[in-house]
Amino acid sequence: MSLSIGFIGLGNMGGPMAANLVKAGHQVKVFDLNQSVVNDLASNGALAATDAKHCATDIDVLISMLPASKHVKSLYLGDTGLIHVLAKNTLVIDCSTIDAASAREVGAELGEQGIAFVDAPVSGGVAGATAGTLTFIVGGDDAHFSQAQHVLADMGKNIFHAGAIGAGQIAKICNNMLLSILMAGTSEAIQMGINNGLDAKVLSDIMTASSGRNWTLELYNPCPGVMETAPASNNYKPGFMVDLMAKDLGLAMEAAQQSNSATPMGSMAKNLYTMLQHQGAGSDDFSAIFKLFSKE
Amino acid sequence: MSLSIGFIGLGNMGGPMAANLVKAGHQVKVFDLNQSVVNDLASNGALAATDAKHCATDIDVLISMLPASKHVKSLYLGDTGLIHVLAKNTLVIDCSTIDAASAREVGAELGEQGIAFVDAPVSGGVAGATAGTLTFIVGGDDAHFSQAQHVLADMGKNIFHAGAIGAGQIAKICNNMLLSILMAGTSEAIQMGINNGLDAKVLSDIMTASSGRNWTLELYNPCPGVMETAPASNNYKPGFMVDLMAKDLGLAMEAAQQSNSATPMGSMAKNLYTMLQHQGAGSDDFSAIFKLFSKE
Amino acid sequence: MSLSIGFIGLGNMGGPMAANLVKAGHQVKVFDLNQSVVNDLASNGALAATDAKHCATDIDVLISMLPASKHVKSLYLGDTGLIHVLAKNTLVIDCSTIDAASAREVGAELGEQGIAFVDAPVSGGVAGATAGTLTFIVGGDDAHFSQAQHVLADMGKNIFHAGAIGAGQIAKICNNMLLSILMAGTSEAIQMGINNGLDAKVLSDIMTASSGRNWTLELYNPCPGVMETAPASNNYKPGFMVDLMAKDLGLAMEAAQQSNSATPMGSMAKNLYTMLQHQGAGSDDFSAIFKLFSKE
Amino acid sequence: MSLSIGFIGLGNMGGPMAANLVKAGHQVKVFDLNQSVVNDLASNGALAATDAKHCATDIDVLISMLPASKHVKSLYLGDTGLIHVLAKNTLVIDCSTIDAASAREVGAELGEQGIAFVDAPVSGGVAGATAGTLTFIVGGDDAHFSQAQHVLADMGKNIFHAGAIGAGQIAKICNNMLLSILMAGTSEAIQMGINNGLDAKVLSDIMTASSGRNWTLELYNPCPGVMETAPASNNYKPGFMVDLMAKDLGLAMEAAQQSNSATPMGSMAKNLYTMLQHQGAGSDDFSAIFKLFSKE
Repeated sequence: MSLSIGFIGLGNMGGPMAANLVKAGHQVKVFDLNQSVVNDLASNGALAATDAKHCATDIDVLISMLPASKHVKSLYLGDTGLIHVLAKNTLVIDCSTIDAASAREVGAELGEQGIAFVDAPVSGGVAGATAGTLTFIVGGDDAHFSQAQHVLADMGKNIFHAGAIGAGQIAKICNNMLLSILMAGTSEAIQMGINNGLDAKVLSDIMTASSGRNWTLELYNPCPGVMETAPASNNYKPGFMVDLMAKDLGLAMEAAQQSNSATPMGSMAKNLYTMLQHQGAGSDDFSAIFKLFSKE
Repeated sequence: MSLSIGFIGLGNMGGPMAANLVKAGHQVKVFDLNQSVVNDLASNGALAATDAKHCATDIDVLISMLPASKHVKSLYLGDTGLIHVLAKNTLVIDCSTIDAASAREVGAELGEQGIAFVDAPVSGGVAGATAGTLTFIVGGDDAHFSQAQHVLADMGKNIFHAGAIGAGQIAKICNNMLLSILMAGTSEAIQMGINNGLDAKVLSDIMTASSGRNWTLELYNPCPGVMETAPASNNYKPGFMVDLMAKDLGLAMEAAQQSNSATPMGSMAKNLYTMLQHQGAGSDDFSAIFKLFSKE
Repeated sequence: MSLSIGFIGLGNMGGPMAANLVKAGHQVKVFDLNQSVVNDLASNGALAATDAKHCATDIDVLISMLPASKHVKSLYLGDTGLIHVLAKNTLVIDCSTIDAASAREVGAELGEQGIAFVDAPVSGGVAGATAGTLTFIVGGDDAHFSQAQHVLADMGKNIFHAGAIGAGQIAKICNNMLLSILMAGTSEAIQMGINNGLDAKVLSDIMTASSGRNWTLELYNPCPGVMETAPASNNYKPGFMVDLMAKDLGLAMEAAQQSNSATPMGSMAKNLYTMLQHQGAGSDDFSAIFKLFSKE
Repeated sequence: MSLSIGFIGLGNMGGPMAANLVKAGHQVKVFDLNQSVVNDLASNGALAATDAKHCATDIDVLISMLPASKHVKSLYLGDTGLIHVLAKNTLVIDCSTIDAASAREVGAELGEQGIAFVDAPVSGGVAGATAGTLTFIVGGDDAHFSQAQHVLADMGKNIFHAGAIGAGQIAKICNNMLLSILMAGTSEAIQMGINNGLDAKVLSDIMTASSGRNWTLELYNPCPGVMETAPASNNYKPGFMVDLMAKDLGLAMEAAQQSNSATPMGSMAKNLYTMLQHQGAGSDDFSAIFKLFSKE
């Protein structure tokens, strides 16, 4: 079923996502402050919107992919927000990774105007965006989730329904906080093995086959040389940057605080990633935390 | 190939391990300070040794399964140790979980007398010991590992060669330290989700299918009700006790110190498990760390 | 020099603070949503304002003492804020403990209208408020600090100038974060001594005379029985509540995040205080963290 | 009262300590494996012992100042130990910083032979050793403490009685663990202030006058430029080296483990100091932990 879709925010992630919607046969109208990426997509079958308002007019679905809460709130709310432009029953899908409170605030205000909203943060990186194999973690009511699912399926492979509006954001940062713990913990366990004379590959194989098994050991070993395709073996070229993991951990710490949750392991990981940033590794892949435990 | 095997230490783990060797057709001579477990095994086909020395005489292989380093050192070394009793070329397999330094010390002293030694700590718990599906992580030279492998295969399923003598112990505690980090991290991530209105099962499913995936989410979910067969859903009946995890983390902290390794996540986990013990949960399953993050 | 002072927020702290201004001879107009505390002060020489706007009219100085950022922002800013009521050149002294960003925001907006602003969070508790011995940590420009100093001197003993607007808040939470670290660290050091057979008083005396010396050992020993006058010896009756320390640590974590500061010790303390809250100790004195490390 | 004193271990600390005993009028017989330091002291009035046994003969008191437990145990115990040489009623004062268990072991074995023993670890560094202003923290029974006090008074200023044998060691590492927490906590609090625009000196002054006050703020500010005489203002030239603090924290972690104490703050500090060592700062003053939190 072909839809008329607006897409705002055509960065490293948003660009290829919009391109996949074009390929899937939708009519896609695109907007970004960077005109050159708009032109690129326009030359590949998208319509170039003249501004955000234009992009949000005469569409079934509006997708946004922006850097942070303030951009999302400013796009939709306030005197100049799209809330005054969007037609009733339009479905808004915000794919940005932002704090859940902001997602709930935007969703509630749009809802009062009869505009549907789901938050749908992604994981899978630029590679997944390009290949159309992203994971979407969606928050919103059942009917809106069903609608969104059809569109998201043209950009991704796994589409989860986490709960009400905001739940997509919460589930994503719970996952990413846990991922940072797995990465830090796996790194220090391998380093301790090395420091005691073990071979990193042998130890990794043993733990992968034992109760230490986790996503980082299976697919993303942080020790250089253990896994040929992992960023660690490619000079920690990202992949998923330290700076982005630090941003997600910031959102996790905010969520922990707002809900008065105890997160000693997550807080530890947050501080380790902050120290890694201070050492100048912000643009490295997040598995570079391995180096923080190294003796050299 | 049937062997003559001595087995010392017939506790919750050692008893069923020895029984499996009997079933496999070996001639098994057993000893423990607790006479009743000796009698049990004797009535099932084992020979009852009169003491440790008797148990260590006229055998091909000696297996020991003892609580701590001091028991292992005192069994083998010193004026009254089995080092004076064991025949040259006997293979000693110590399945106890002890510090690597002690394993190396015992292995080196036995080696000087021409007695072969491997350290082969296990994981898999009482259930694995009974079913004969234990995992053994072995340290020792290649030839001794090959010999040991044949015997261990009658008690377990996965047999890893981690490296030289002591490497079995190091690899096991690296794994168990990582496991404690996975369990603590998974617990606090799920609790933060719950505190923000998410359903624990939905969140667990999402993370299992995402980059937060790890052994605890797959097989041992710490949140009551998510996984029917997990200890969490059975009032945290172990399983693998908090006290045992605390012991293994103690060995991990010792190894970290001796090798001057930085283990911020492992140290955090160690302190959390110590606080859990102080709250009276020492005999609960180690997934009970979930309760430490609960708001009650 | 007698001034005309408005005072909004007459809680446990604000009430006695306003009373001290009356005693010092100022003309004090007071307002609170709780009418009974207004009446109390009125019967002791204050003028009862009918509402916040009334309280902010015809005065030289306005002081506010409110629970959180949202109350402060809503009092001063927005369509109904006092920003539309306060006369140019009035000096606003906000004694609330809030995040620095909010303090800067309020200060900047008032400044644009020619209204002077300093943030002046306090320490010293209800006892200090009553005795007029509070410590004020002030942020604002030099001229405004000088003005504020004269008023604050009638409510407190130590008045520090930390820097520009917002610096008062930052300095206070840096101090309180450090205090939480001192309290947690002192508690675990004493507990470790006790667990190794030392007498808590003897150990405390030794550390007080050595390089472990700190404010908590000198004035506020967390171990029951060591210091007769400390909350620890009075069943942890506050004093300064766990809940309030947790709030301040929340502000510290926010400041750390906004400035991308690494605070591993502060984060550890924050998580320990959160766990203490979850154990039901929120209303105990903050030295009750001592119990978190206890074996019983 | 002049005594005949043997002194073994004439390093950076032991050398000046022995020299002060000579100055105080005692007859001092000295021994070290390094013959040149023996000669130095001999040329200043000490007697040069030919070996440890000679040093331990015909004396009232034997003092030892050695690097680690293994040296102390090997000096006193075993087939070649001084236990076979020392006369009954000799008082042995071991000033080494070692684990309490080893101190208790040595004390117990000597005690069985009627030889008195106290552990008396020091603080105050080389400067204190030279000036005769060391602090001694003593473990042993009351009578032996009284005896020791007279000798120690010639080398130090503060002499504390912590409890039974081993208590000196425990009290010292409790204090030094707490000191590491104060230093790390003070460093991150000041860095957070700086990152938020505060002046380090102003913030330090405020916290010194408030509840954040502690030994490091008063005497040893870790921020360069705040305190002219502190190592921080002298390129972190020690003072007390990172490597030595890491050693003491290692002893603290051992004591925590043996007594099953929860030490989350101390463990955090230990890991931070280990990471600092890995960054090549082992020979810097321990206040260099300030740099670990810096943004560069």
